[in-house]
Amino acid sequence: MTSAPLRETRRSGGRRGRAAAAATGAGGRKVDYHNLRNPFPAVPVFTDDRIAAMHQSALTVLEDLGMKVLLPDARDIYAGGGALVDGETVRIGRDMVEAALSTAPKSFAIRAGSRAKDLTMELGRLAIQTGGGAPHAADRLRGRRPGDMEAFVDFTKLTQHYDVFQMLGPSVEPQDSPVHVRHLDTTRALLTLSDKIPFIFSRGSGQVADCFEMIRIARGLDSTAFAAEPWCYTIINTNSPRMLDIPMAQGLIDFARAGQMSVVTPFCLMGAMAPVTVAGAVTLSHAEALAAIVLTQLTKPGAPICYGSFTSNVDMKSGAPAFGTPEHVKANLAVGQLARLLGLPWRSATGAGGPVNDAQAAHETQFGAWGAVLAGATILLHGAGWIEGGLTVSFEKLITDLEAMQIFAELCAPTPATEAEIALDALREVQPGGHFFGCAHTMERYSTAFYEPVVADWSNYGTWVERGSRDADERATDIWQKALADVRTPELAPDRLAALDTFIAERRAQGGAAPVA
Amino acid sequence: MTSAPLRETRRSGGRRGRAAAAATGAGGRKVDYHNLRNPFPAVPVFTDDRIAAMHQSALTVLEDLGMKVLLPDARDIYAGGGALVDGETVRIGRDMVEAALSTAPKSFAIRAGSRAKDLTMELGRLAIQTGGGAPHAADRLRGRRPGDMEAFVDFTKLTQHYDVFQMLGPSVEPQDSPVHVRHLDTTRALLTLSDKIPFIFSRGSGQVADCFEMIRIARGLDSTAFAAEPWCYTIINTNSPRMLDIPMAQGLIDFARAGQMSVVTPFCLMGAMAPVTVAGAVTLSHAEALAAIVLTQLTKPGAPICYGSFTSNVDMKSGAPAFGTPEHVKANLAVGQLARLLGLPWRSATGAGGPVNDAQAAHETQFGAWGAVLAGATILLHGAGWIEGGLTVSFEKLITDLEAMQIFAELCAPTPATEAEIALDALREVQPGGHFFGCAHTMERYSTAFYEPVVADWSNYGTWVERGSRDADERATDIWQKALADVRTPELAPDRLAALDTFIAERRAQGGAAPVA
Repeated sequence: MTSAPLRETRRSGGRRGRAAAAATGAGGRKVDYHNLRNPFPAVPVFTDDRIAAMHQSALTVLEDLGMKVLLPDARDIYAGGGALVDGETVRIGRDMVEAALSTAPKSFAIRAGSRAKDLTMELGRLAIQTGGGAPHAADRLRGRRPGDMEAFVDFTKLTQHYDVFQMLGPSVEPQDSPVHVRHLDTTRALLTLSDKIPFIFSRGSGQVADCFEMIRIARGLDSTAFAAEPWCYTIINTNSPRMLDIPMAQGLIDFARAGQMSVVTPFCLMGAMAPVTVAGAVTLSHAEALAAIVLTQLTKPGAPICYGSFTSNVDMKSGAPAFGTPEHVKANLAVGQLARLLGLPWRSATGAGGPVNDAQAAHETQFGAWGAVLAGATILLHGAGWIEGGLTVSFEKLITDLEAMQIFAELCAPTPATEAEIALDALREVQPGGHFFGCAHTMERYSTAFYEPVVADWSNYGTWVERGSRDADERATDIWQKALADVRTPELAPDRLAALDTFIAERRAQGGAAPVA
Repeated sequence: MTSAPLRETRRSGGRRGRAAAAATGAGGRKVDYHNLRNPFPAVPVFTDDRIAAMHQSALTVLEDLGMKVLLPDARDIYAGGGALVDGETVRIGRDMVEAALSTAPKSFAIRAGSRAKDLTMELGRLAIQTGGGAPHAADRLRGRRPGDMEAFVDFTKLTQHYDVFQMLGPSVEPQDSPVHVRHLDTTRALLTLSDKIPFIFSRGSGQVADCFEMIRIARGLDSTAFAAEPWCYTIINTNSPRMLDIPMAQGLIDFARAGQMSVVTPFCLMGAMAPVTVAGAVTLSHAEALAAIVLTQLTKPGAPICYGSFTSNVDMKSGAPAFGTPEHVKANLAVGQLARLLGLPWRSATGAGGPVNDAQAAHETQFGAWGAVLAGATILLHGAGWIEGGLTVSFEKLITDLEAMQIFAELCAPTPATEAEIALDALREVQPGGHFFGCAHTMERYSTAFYEPVVADWSNYGTWVERGSRDADERATDIWQKALADVRTPELAPDRLAALDTFIAERRAQGGAAPVA
């Protein structure tokens, strides 16, 4: 985040990465959608003194009220760091928070299956993820149905296909895969269909250890190399208010011990599991995130973590979650201020509460995304495909949101303004009332001048009717089908694939690993 | 525009206006959607030195290449100010531009039918208009059809109904009203159905004089009072590149002489009537706007004007205009930089190129709107209802965009962060794993805490299906119908109404006034 002009920001770094991952559009247009630096000035919603007051209040919450921590091992780790443990209640002193913040890394690389897909986690970067964690999938061909491996595979392929989705997310829950082997099925899909950074659910040490091993095999790493840098990440949702359950606490410990990245994300819906005010909800979220960060740093000082929050409001009439609301945008902006106070990379999110891929859902996703972008989020989660407040991922919305995310990526790219761009010669060449279609300045640039849309249709009304009067949702069906047909999945070395499948077969034979509740 | 936190900006001014125009939502929520101050930091797209280069290039264009001015009276006024007139070409010196910029007011009030609906034109304010200038209207009940007085009346009523539309715009073209009396019909509708600031087309001095007189009668002003302040505005589109046609030049002169506001808006589509680059298109637009401003200030120094630009790109394959594109957003940001260089209030716009009120159109309108808001535009035109690149206003899109515009207005409002808002007491009250639905802090605030949506539906999938599986476009039909039934139009004093109708009858009997081409 910087207040320098959009064009300047990108100048300063990432050129090598850009070149490596440059996507070639039709007409030779090249824009790197992988290595994004956020060019927008950070927008505050509160004064610095109020942000400081929220931080202090969060410290008071941790010190006076504490967190309810359900995992005994976690309580022991907290106690070892100086926390006051009283039954399941863990009271965390300000000094412990300060110590944790002094060891949590402010910038680190996270490794993918190829160097071009690596990312750097630090303030000022921007990585976008598709919508994730949905129990259902929906598309116009197959309808709305419980998530299954087919949907998981397709969603993974689509995430791989589009450069603007720089990381793999929790995607859709494949309920046709038995829970004790589901982590094997999903992680195999992530590692064989994509070379982007994989997501691992924290559903107990057994599953997590399996996934770590699969990543080590697929990436061709020995234990030392795997432990040296993060190669995957998990998302830790606290149980707001003020509770850390067993799998989440275990996940924080397991990932920290292994040197892998935890994305700490209290899910604080204002008026439900958090106070009804932006300031109160953000304070609670901040306290819980700090508690989780403390656990990671006590487990292993320097463990890679990503601060985060997912704070929106509920509909006070129905209790339904709402996204893209003014309160959601403001919460994103406020959390960004708190993240900058800490200096840590952080994860935000957008979302859509509506049940269909329509104008409402588009507005909601875009508003939430602007909130995250203007707040300087390092990771923007649920950027594409979410509907029903995350209960469903829509393949069509994945495509219509993809367009929006690509426009954000375009806005991260520099805009030249040399004398040649200012184009006095062209202004001299074209006479009053004329047009620039054929002038030399245009001819030299027209094929690369503009972003070329994926789904937007700008044809006139008559042509549009002739072509079947299909709205963006309908057109998106063709697009994701074609993308699935066109996707280039990475080639995993045969020996690694064989080793991966041997490992999976062994673990299946041993009964897999049941999820921990 | 300021880099202070969102909540602080609104603190500093407009309290009286806010109180006067406060809208009361359900549950007692009060947010003033009329007097908006833009709380977002201005986002630059170019460095200051490149903006200065564009300004200098625009001055070179005016000095060396000149404008083609079709109206002899305008050429005479330019010549009187020192311009070099050669046939229809008018070359305008830098000194003339400098003189005009020294007299153009940087802040002025524009008067409505009631003081609560007045606005201030200056950098830092934000006024939103509906989509305007469309030859067609469309809705789900009456279909897509040529604009008529029924559509014009309905559109005017809806604009009156919603506080977030602070000005009346060019709306829809009522083609069932004969062209020589159409200005009488439309202006009567604006003045009798709304107390917001009316828009007048510049289609010749005869029509403009009629409209001025009607406003004078309806507002109860003598000639002196009318001339003392702006009571209406027009939009002046130059004929890019570098041409000023007869009605537009005449409009600039007529409005300046009458002390009424001209909104100067070159419509520069990159790659068509402007260079294919953002920097080039914005430079051309800037030159043309400056030429128009010079004409107003030569006509009457101090005449109220609003700088502006409507710069987007075309689809280079079809030539179709595109909106909400990265290039459109960047152009908005760049024009904002030029406006701040001049210090003048300025008008930007969003829009939608798609032919239907779907996810594409929503994304386009919102992206363009963010471009305008982050560029610090004083007037955001086409904020609601535009589809087909402005060929049609959609009543349903008016409603779905209304929601987006209200969210922008909410983001302009302050967000409190007192200790009570931070809510340590509530955090103490609610135990880990509990919820905040019933706590005192929530009970005191729940009815006013959150923005209440107009069209967004957050019900779960099952409920949504039970209710008919209606998307936002379908639900919007009910909403605009209800708004039309509920709208409160201002009561015009009987004597003024009678005088207005007498004037109209006289002018009709005299044959009205034909538009000037």
